[in-house]
Amino acid sequence: MTTLPIALDAMGGDNAPGAIVEGAQRAVAELGVEITLVGRPEALAALRGDLDVFAASEVIAMDADPASSVRTMKDSSLVRSAELVRDGKASAMVSAGNTGATMASALLRMGRIKGVARPAIATPIPVFGSTPTILLDAGANAECQPAWLVQFAQMGAVYARERWGVEEPRVGLLSIGEEPTKGTPLVKETHELLAAPGALSGAGARFVGNVEGRDLMTPDVDVVVTDGFTGNVALKTLEGGMKAIVTAVVGALSATEGADKALDGLLPLYSQVDPDQHGGAMLLGVNGVCIISHGSSSATAVVNAVRVARDLVEAGLVDRLRTVIGAG
Amino acid sequence: MTTLPIALDAMGGDNAPGAIVEGAQRAVAELGVEITLVGRPEALAALRGDLDVFAASEVIAMDADPASSVRTMKDSSLVRSAELVRDGKASAMVSAGNTGATMASALLRMGRIKGVARPAIATPIPVFGSTPTILLDAGANAECQPAWLVQFAQMGAVYARERWGVEEPRVGLLSIGEEPTKGTPLVKETHELLAAPGALSGAGARFVGNVEGRDLMTPDVDVVVTDGFTGNVALKTLEGGMKAIVTAVVGALSATEGADKALDGLLPLYSQVDPDQHGGAMLLGVNGVCIISHGSSSATAVVNAVRVARDLVEAGLVDRLRTVIGAG
Repeated sequence: MTTLPIALDAMGGDNAPGAIVEGAQRAVAELGVEITLVGRPEALAALRGDLDVFAASEVIAMDADPASSVRTMKDSSLVRSAELVRDGKASAMVSAGNTGATMASALLRMGRIKGVARPAIATPIPVFGSTPTILLDAGANAECQPAWLVQFAQMGAVYARERWGVEEPRVGLLSIGEEPTKGTPLVKETHELLAAPGALSGAGARFVGNVEGRDLMTPDVDVVVTDGFTGNVALKTLEGGMKAIVTAVVGALSATEGADKALDGLLPLYSQVDPDQHGGAMLLGVNGVCIISHGSSSATAVVNAVRVARDLVEAGLVDRLRTVIGAG
Repeated sequence: MTTLPIALDAMGGDNAPGAIVEGAQRAVAELGVEITLVGRPEALAALRGDLDVFAASEVIAMDADPASSVRTMKDSSLVRSAELVRDGKASAMVSAGNTGATMASALLRMGRIKGVARPAIATPIPVFGSTPTILLDAGANAECQPAWLVQFAQMGAVYARERWGVEEPRVGLLSIGEEPTKGTPLVKETHELLAAPGALSGAGARFVGNVEGRDLMTPDVDVVVTDGFTGNVALKTLEGGMKAIVTAVVGALSATEGADKALDGLLPLYSQVDPDQHGGAMLLGVNGVCIISHGSSSATAVVNAVRVARDLVEAGLVDRLRTVIGAG
């Protein structure tokens, strides 16, 4: 049981605070969780209803520089959200705001799990008819060292099991060919480390070798590790491709007789790739649950992000990560 | 007018030699080009019809190691194809075979254009309702230096103009944010070089700054440069995503009433993303036209690849590249 409330950055996201607070109201009603809205009281007064508000006078803009914003805006909704978790007043934080600033707030205020070299953003990539593929790092660390990627693999495997019930997660290393000799020096060195006996046994996972971009949306792999530059490019390339094809398909069908039924038939598919349904990305490796919802989050996205935060708190994810990394 | 034949690797590709030779027959009939099939005479005897065959006794397998294969298999269809161009007996080479070996054959036998640091694979990314976005390097060089990426930008711009008639190509640098301060050291240094006045003026292009993966399938940019590792990951991620969604859409529509008409309505879209229609990728920077068709090329893909080879020879692409790089 979650006894502490979830800290929700009410000011973060393109649709804040309206959609965020609406999502909070729905989450309380639908999930029975407690939520603390963090933000400017005057902006939330008319929206909050019965929800608690923790006052934070500043808002870090979506396009602000993360490091300097977090350093200078100590009374921002993001920094205060992270502090509530640090101080044991919230069980988790959720934000649809500036991703870099969310990361920096969590890292600086909650700190890292002991032994974690670098936290990583883990993003679920939808796979039709299967559990998603966890891609990490999706953008926290543009440059990485091989040992960090091994930790990403361990953390991603724990996450796949705790969140999606994958028994023995299959971990792949993103490269440009299956051969261990292909790729950058980072990939080659990481391959060696991951292929060593026992590299992932503490995490209950197994290394399936190098995978390619085309494997991301297949059920053939559960966790894909890469540096944050490559991961972010892959993620955004996929998002852009999905958007382009969905727009084109809807456009083509709208010009086709019998399209209404066809579009109805496609709706269940759409819900599988709709980012609002996924509950967002997670920053793995910090001392607390930190969910990063996408910038254009709707109220539904907020409900799902809160649900994931609640589930991961109840599953004891951070303690599981602590055990696995501590033993590594 | 093309007076020399195009050298076609008859043994390369998953469907070789059948689909390759069928494509050659169709290209001769439809395009009026001359083609020299390169490969094992006994494998081509029953298929060749009136086509010329240049004998090559060896075949580099699709999964063979490129460098060692090209070094040891001097009588392979790939190496011989490149030699025909080098020796002035063919105007261009086309292969659906092992990409790395195609690259190595072209590089070692034709050599680089004077001043080119590294050749790059330029791949067209389909954009609905617009000219494609040229992505390079799509996999020739896993590790790159900033000055190479500047040349990729120049070569990609020339290619966009000569092949698709883009007047003043807009060149973007692939990164994980629009800000010049984001990304890896490679990206930051390349950004500075590309932003310098006149960096792309010789190529008749302009630098539009950093772009993200989500921009690839939009009409907002014409040429996107990146290192061959990131480019290959982006390309394959997009291919995998397209395949997953096309499979899912066809599956969902097949279970929907009125699906036949809807599927008919989607066919024109499909032809826009069908790799068989694109004529393949091009290796830019070698002393000759080298078209790399995808491994599963059909006869139609071969026709389109030959068409592109013919067009680029007639446009004098290699001379244009020579002028622009020579002046750089």
